[in-house]
Amino acid sequence: MTIDKVVATAAEAVADIPHGATIAIAGFGFSHAYPTLVPALLERGSTGLTVIANSLGAQADSLATLIEHHRVSRLLISISSRADEQIASGEIQVELVPQGTLVERLRAGGTGLAGFYTRTGVGTLVAEGKEVRRFDGEDYVLEEAIRPDFSFVRARRADRFGNLEFSGVGRNFHPAFAKAGRVVIAEVDEIVDAVDPERVGLPGIFVSRVVQQAPQPPFTPPRMRKERREDVPVEYGGKPGLTRAQMAETVAGLLPSGSYVNLGLGMPTMVSDYIAGRDIVLHSENGMLGYGAHAPADRIDPDVYNAGSGFVELEPGASFFDSVTSFEMVRGGQVDVVVLGGLQVDQDANLANWATSDRHGGTIGGAMDLAAGGATVVVMMTHLAGEHQKLVTRCSFPLTGVGCVDVVVTDLCVLRRVDGRFRIESTAPGFTPEEVAALTEMPLEH
Amino acid sequence: MTIDKVVATAAEAVADIPHGATIAIAGFGFSHAYPTLVPALLERGSTGLTVIANSLGAQADSLATLIEHHRVSRLLISISSRADEQIASGEIQVELVPQGTLVERLRAGGTGLAGFYTRTGVGTLVAEGKEVRRFDGEDYVLEEAIRPDFSFVRARRADRFGNLEFSGVGRNFHPAFAKAGRVVIAEVDEIVDAVDPERVGLPGIFVSRVVQQAPQPPFTPPRMRKERREDVPVEYGGKPGLTRAQMAETVAGLLPSGSYVNLGLGMPTMVSDYIAGRDIVLHSENGMLGYGAHAPADRIDPDVYNAGSGFVELEPGASFFDSVTSFEMVRGGQVDVVVLGGLQVDQDANLANWATSDRHGGTIGGAMDLAAGGATVVVMMTHLAGEHQKLVTRCSFPLTGVGCVDVVVTDLCVLRRVDGRFRIESTAPGFTPEEVAALTEMPLEH
Repeated sequence: MTIDKVVATAAEAVADIPHGATIAIAGFGFSHAYPTLVPALLERGSTGLTVIANSLGAQADSLATLIEHHRVSRLLISISSRADEQIASGEIQVELVPQGTLVERLRAGGTGLAGFYTRTGVGTLVAEGKEVRRFDGEDYVLEEAIRPDFSFVRARRADRFGNLEFSGVGRNFHPAFAKAGRVVIAEVDEIVDAVDPERVGLPGIFVSRVVQQAPQPPFTPPRMRKERREDVPVEYGGKPGLTRAQMAETVAGLLPSGSYVNLGLGMPTMVSDYIAGRDIVLHSENGMLGYGAHAPADRIDPDVYNAGSGFVELEPGASFFDSVTSFEMVRGGQVDVVVLGGLQVDQDANLANWATSDRHGGTIGGAMDLAAGGATVVVMMTHLAGEHQKLVTRCSFPLTGVGCVDVVVTDLCVLRRVDGRFRIESTAPGFTPEEVAALTEMPLEH
Repeated sequence: MTIDKVVATAAEAVADIPHGATIAIAGFGFSHAYPTLVPALLERGSTGLTVIANSLGAQADSLATLIEHHRVSRLLISISSRADEQIASGEIQVELVPQGTLVERLRAGGTGLAGFYTRTGVGTLVAEGKEVRRFDGEDYVLEEAIRPDFSFVRARRADRFGNLEFSGVGRNFHPAFAKAGRVVIAEVDEIVDAVDPERVGLPGIFVSRVVQQAPQPPFTPPRMRKERREDVPVEYGGKPGLTRAQMAETVAGLLPSGSYVNLGLGMPTMVSDYIAGRDIVLHSENGMLGYGAHAPADRIDPDVYNAGSGFVELEPGASFFDSVTSFEMVRGGQVDVVVLGGLQVDQDANLANWATSDRHGGTIGGAMDLAAGGATVVVMMTHLAGEHQKLVTRCSFPLTGVGCVDVVVTDLCVLRRVDGRFRIESTAPGFTPEEVAALTEMPLEH
């Protein structure tokens, strides 16, 4: 056997990772942890690392662990939460990259493409200092390829040729990150004689080394955030607005049957509990179409969760794919409606939802890609942020998308943009359009 | 069921294709025929079509049928054979596009990317009139996205959501062509209730209409070209050079064990019969790694054929994927060695292998991508073309790649480029290096 990519130990797999190396660590939600490779890399002692990732991961032995041990000096990342303190102190330099652009830049780096023009990020901080060019009357940003020294990826199964098999949403960022790396190290649950040629999710030609994952405790689903938080409505002048569940139901009612819909992080994920039986196909950035309501505890499949890491059920017509494909759908306009959380929406239909102006780092995620794809954009957010206005004349926070918002659903009203202005389409029970308009900085038609 | 993409008849599926429409017709080798959609389109009577395709297809009811009926006025294509007469007469305008660039331009068109910089085609006719830009010391060509009005794709299985399942090398150009089209029509062998979510090769979000293929006669493998042609060696001064089989065996002997190797169209495909047991992983542009020798007639799998449409056997570690992924491997330098046919090689290591200077149209195929990926390039060709030199001081035919040739295997010798010059490494039995050099226009060291 001339070709045998299986290495005996994780220590051997990471032995040549020097100080200052650039490592792309693939993962999304629960597939972010590397319980075998991350401890080996900590033990190896490499510091001053540049790490490319979607987010830091919430579990033990994810990128967050490397941050806690101060091994990282630079991040290219979509969601910087949990590193923000080291970013604020200047210990870590950060470049925030929209998810779809991140996977596309990595894919390009490993596949002989130097860069590409994308519609994601036009008019935002992400485009600053980059070439913006007009094609067919529309602006696109030039994004350059990324070529890391090493990539870490995870998969369900591998063989000696390095062929990888994934399960459910386990594909996500892994194929793109693997294509990019000069040396690609895969941590896998199981090593088999040969992966079925029809089930190879990443051909072994893209993989350098395979390590068997150390035995892990059995899967126990983490408690959902939504279970932890009570759904108490905000009061306005002594009267309650809609609960979050009522807002989710309101959004669901606005979705056309037969449409493809993406639900963003946070509150929007709750919408999936209100679409049963309507042939609405839900799209998730981590690589899934056709999911439904949140799964009850006894029916959780560890490989079926949405972009907000909520375990969900599959509807008829479901499919799994990687994040490159997922953002192809988004940017290409195949997704009809996207529901996004918001920090600010202004009267020119600009959306800000990834960082406050005083924050170091941010949570770009896939929102810029989702806002740029040409879908109907529904923003779902509380009407006010405590004392602060969210429906403003002009966004003060960095933008997610320019002129992209079509509908806003708050706990007080539904707004729809008609002829360039937002009009109150309905109000929460107990509130008049005049009361809602009086609570709002942005001028509202009614 | 709000979503039901299955249409009752092919006539209904193509009813809105107007005169002058742009149609991308996916396929590679045997997956090029549309026995249901092409007759319906002929019947519909649309003319003046712009067609985007890999090649014309050799079977009934492929693009070739539309050409024969004079329905096409423009072609974007990799291999124009069989349309060359109409191209020469001016009836059809043609733009030749390398295979890897073709799928990438289509993929970009449907996924919100306006264009990309690729290393394929630099220094060739393909780059003329396009921006060439330097990134990290290397030149790249800007290739723009293509967005056809319609796409035709084929698959093994579909469901009412439009999810498609492929089998073997049946993926090839279909996913990229489907992503590109504004209206995507799939002709499928079988319609099922639901495709397995893990086996969906193209999610239904990319598909507009599904048509069940009309019943077809059972599969009978076409006779292989190699069986039809006798392997008679050319004589030089009354002495025979190597047969084609001997040349293939010579090339196989030069391939390092454990390497990834692509065998180009024509003679190079014969090399796969001489690598048994050596852990050489053969790559095929139509989406396969790990194939082996040509399959005996009683062991042919209709979904397992190489880029030259030769039915082959699978080796351990095999995998299937689409053509986008296939050319990612090629351009990205994952393929170690490529073996290409040649019309001319010159002393500066330039290769010409897709058109003679007086020809209309040409056979670009994947050769430009393969020559640009940084692999070791082995050219396999007869030493002379009748009276004409093929190893020349300067190529007179349009180039496939600039300075890319490392080794040449002819029926008279093996040449290796060392310090910028070609040196005779070995000669065919019965020939001296001096005899070979005397037969050759290019100066050869020996």
